[in-house]
Amino acid sequence: MKTYRELEARFARLADLGAALAVLGWDERTMMPAGASPVRAETNAGLRVLSHELLTGAELGDLLDKVDSEHNQLDEWQRANVAEMRWQRLHATAVPADLVHALAMIESRTEMAWRAAKPANDFPAVRALLEETVRLVREASVAKAEALGLSPYDALMDQWDPGLRTAFVDPIFDAYGRFLPGFLERVLEKQSREDLLPIEGPFPIERQRALALDAMRAVGFDFNRGRLDESLHPFCGGAPGDVRITTRYDEHDFARSLMGVLHETGHAMYELGLPEAWRRQPVGEARGMTVHESQSLLVEMQACRSREFLAWLAPQLRAAFGGSEAVRDAASGGGAWSETNLRRHLTRVRRSFIRVDADEVTYPAHVILRYRLERGLLSGDLPVADLPDAWAHGLQTLLGIRPPDDRRGCLQDIHWYSATFGYFATYSLGAMTAAQLFGAAAIAEPGLRDDLARGDFRRLMGWLRTNVHAQGRRFSTEALVTRATGRPLDPAIFQAHLQRRYLDEA
Amino acid sequence: MKTYRELEARFARLADLGAALAVLGWDERTMMPAGASPVRAETNAGLRVLSHELLTGAELGDLLDKVDSEHNQLDEWQRANVAEMRWQRLHATAVPADLVHALAMIESRTEMAWRAAKPANDFPAVRALLEETVRLVREASVAKAEALGLSPYDALMDQWDPGLRTAFVDPIFDAYGRFLPGFLERVLEKQSREDLLPIEGPFPIERQRALALDAMRAVGFDFNRGRLDESLHPFCGGAPGDVRITTRYDEHDFARSLMGVLHETGHAMYELGLPEAWRRQPVGEARGMTVHESQSLLVEMQACRSREFLAWLAPQLRAAFGGSEAVRDAASGGGAWSETNLRRHLTRVRRSFIRVDADEVTYPAHVILRYRLERGLLSGDLPVADLPDAWAHGLQTLLGIRPPDDRRGCLQDIHWYSATFGYFATYSLGAMTAAQLFGAAAIAEPGLRDDLARGDFRRLMGWLRTNVHAQGRRFSTEALVTRATGRPLDPAIFQAHLQRRYLDEA
Repeated sequence: MKTYRELEARFARLADLGAALAVLGWDERTMMPAGASPVRAETNAGLRVLSHELLTGAELGDLLDKVDSEHNQLDEWQRANVAEMRWQRLHATAVPADLVHALAMIESRTEMAWRAAKPANDFPAVRALLEETVRLVREASVAKAEALGLSPYDALMDQWDPGLRTAFVDPIFDAYGRFLPGFLERVLEKQSREDLLPIEGPFPIERQRALALDAMRAVGFDFNRGRLDESLHPFCGGAPGDVRITTRYDEHDFARSLMGVLHETGHAMYELGLPEAWRRQPVGEARGMTVHESQSLLVEMQACRSREFLAWLAPQLRAAFGGSEAVRDAASGGGAWSETNLRRHLTRVRRSFIRVDADEVTYPAHVILRYRLERGLLSGDLPVADLPDAWAHGLQTLLGIRPPDDRRGCLQDIHWYSATFGYFATYSLGAMTAAQLFGAAAIAEPGLRDDLARGDFRRLMGWLRTNVHAQGRRFSTEALVTRATGRPLDPAIFQAHLQRRYLDEA
Repeated sequence: MKTYRELEARFARLADLGAALAVLGWDERTMMPAGASPVRAETNAGLRVLSHELLTGAELGDLLDKVDSEHNQLDEWQRANVAEMRWQRLHATAVPADLVHALAMIESRTEMAWRAAKPANDFPAVRALLEETVRLVREASVAKAEALGLSPYDALMDQWDPGLRTAFVDPIFDAYGRFLPGFLERVLEKQSREDLLPIEGPFPIERQRALALDAMRAVGFDFNRGRLDESLHPFCGGAPGDVRITTRYDEHDFARSLMGVLHETGHAMYELGLPEAWRRQPVGEARGMTVHESQSLLVEMQACRSREFLAWLAPQLRAAFGGSEAVRDAASGGGAWSETNLRRHLTRVRRSFIRVDADEVTYPAHVILRYRLERGLLSGDLPVADLPDAWAHGLQTLLGIRPPDDRRGCLQDIHWYSATFGYFATYSLGAMTAAQLFGAAAIAEPGLRDDLARGDFRRLMGWLRTNVHAQGRRFSTEALVTRATGRPLDPAIFQAHLQRRYLDEA
């Protein structure tokens, strides 16, 4: 197993570079003084190029060829590890170095232009750069397609979620597109008949922070191996065994930060639960973005917007933010901070323009729109110049509304402007996977929902640890889901969850 | 200049790794959750080994051989850059890889043992590990000596301060050893006759922090390219263009934190003033540890303990901490917060055991002691087992006191227990260089001292920027000092400074 051991040593080195880049990335968005940006960009680029060179070098290729002769000596995890090494190298070598460089350059230029164009609502200002970005991404996707034996768009999705294909996504999204309009009408009609008392702030930041930390502890976050900080755009970052999430507090909206922290905590629990024995090896990493999003959404949407958990949360929010009025209301069992009113707020459905603020019913519409548009952009069927109109038309079809401007339309997300294509589908596939995993966990662990009503996540997290987190990349996404839930992803489970939460429950 | 350009590209890559390690080092001591230590140790080791491999690889050696043919095309800075590249590679290749690895292992083991042994005052607990550390450092010093054509101890000093030799240090330290006893007696006698009113706390941390930030701004620290945070042991770290200093607040002692911040700000101003055009190149780095220490001590000791600056500082401290009592005292011109009383506190001389708390008069005694002892340890003349006694005896000779225990003796500093030898001399050479540079600056810029009395450091920093910071490693330390001050380091200038501040001034 000499060759295999040598491969492990080389990939451990790559993991060290990755961990360094991850901590630097966290630092950049939370601590770094603004004036250090150009220097940091150089440092990041240097480490990335080095990493790319190590991954694409001839020696590593020779080792991956030679390791076949040791196949019989490797156990199941080691074989899966070699497969993941090959997958990483295949993606890295597929794109010629000069194209990698050109993409890195256009990416930072376009993103910078987008940062100015978005608040100015000025799509024409970024159009030419986006065209060039699309052209280069298309070129890379064609190169990857050839190397991987996939269609260009599948090759892009594969890098975010290995194995994900349009042939799998299309029918799921088409079905949701058919399901949504009628379902949405019924939900909106039902919710329009419900009383909704406003929950009024301000909500002092310090109390929000204390509550966020309490919520993280409840879920099981280990502050000896992670942190909570603040950043403009919340994220889950850091390195293995050192997981750092962020949030942004708004004095007039406690829910966005709190639910955002719970979402990122779901991501963090996945990272903290990855198999310790395979740290610094490809097979020890998170399976892919669908499974990663499933973990954040399972915590935020399935567990933390459930009636059970909200019954536990409501009195705590009342105590933190309610003041004397809340005490009176509490005595009568009603008022803004009542369990029922809180649940109505946290499960409110709306036709809205901004993806990141959307509820779980309409969120897939935003994703489907982007999924379709980016395929059109890459195939060339949709010229960049026509994007604003296509966006407006698509949202009209899916959700029945048109964005009033590009800021709330095709300029809202960073993805395309930072050369990220093939990613969006994983958000909604993650939501669907979350519903299926949560359902399976609740069956396997009968007391699980009652636990949540006491703010106790141990049983849920224990099940997830065993069935998802600790599996790393040992199985494909499909095999992981099948082993954990008894069947491959079944979108009907997500629809049943929506039916139950938004129509059946009182 | 193809070869030279290729060398620049490779050293820029090494600088990127160095910058990443530097930010990770800052993070480790300020932000990282404790449980992440083992993971971070792996990441650090991975990046260090990678860096060492890149620096010692055969390709780099070939390029450094070939670049000679381009000598005539290179300008002065480029030639100096090549010389620094050769110096870095020489030090890196001098020690065989297995010895580098053995040193890294013993270093972390010994340091860990020391962290427990120091508070327990248990030298025997760490003795065997220190013996092994000394043995390995000796082996490395012999290997370096051979490669560099120096004595083993000179080879160790050379890595911290290129060009520094015992033949230079010995007479300076011997002279100070002769000067100190009589001078110290006179200072202590003079100070014993002065009234000293106690300055009593508590000094609220928030006010100390605000004052520290004000002081940094006064010196000229650019918060767009750096930060101030807290850590157990204060340091100046971060990367070029992103300089991060730390302090530690004590509610009962405002001076330690404030003067510490000013000290680290001196280091930071050096880093921030390095030649921008040579960032990521060896010649663009700080000259060496003597010059680095000269910059921190110039700010802390020369500028910020001067009568001029303290005249500016006293009313600010009074306003921040003084309360009503101070207002009354201020009206009468006296009291604890008076300029005179503050100056007496901040220039108080004592025979004491702890180097880091020592005043500028006795500090060199602590350094000379360690310089002599570590040479004995490395030569074998001083067995590790005899270190506690040799320490006590040496301090008695230099300062007239004996440490009551090893905690306040040979266990107090981390250096030897983390395999750092050959470093100590730079502290006191830095103090002497600081006196010489400050004197030259005050002559070149006649209004400089008056500026300090208004809290205005611009003239001082302008002179340092031009004469020291922006020179990077273009000149040797000796040439740098000679160009800036008209002559090589002259320890008589430091002694004259002490004479003036501690005996002549009222």
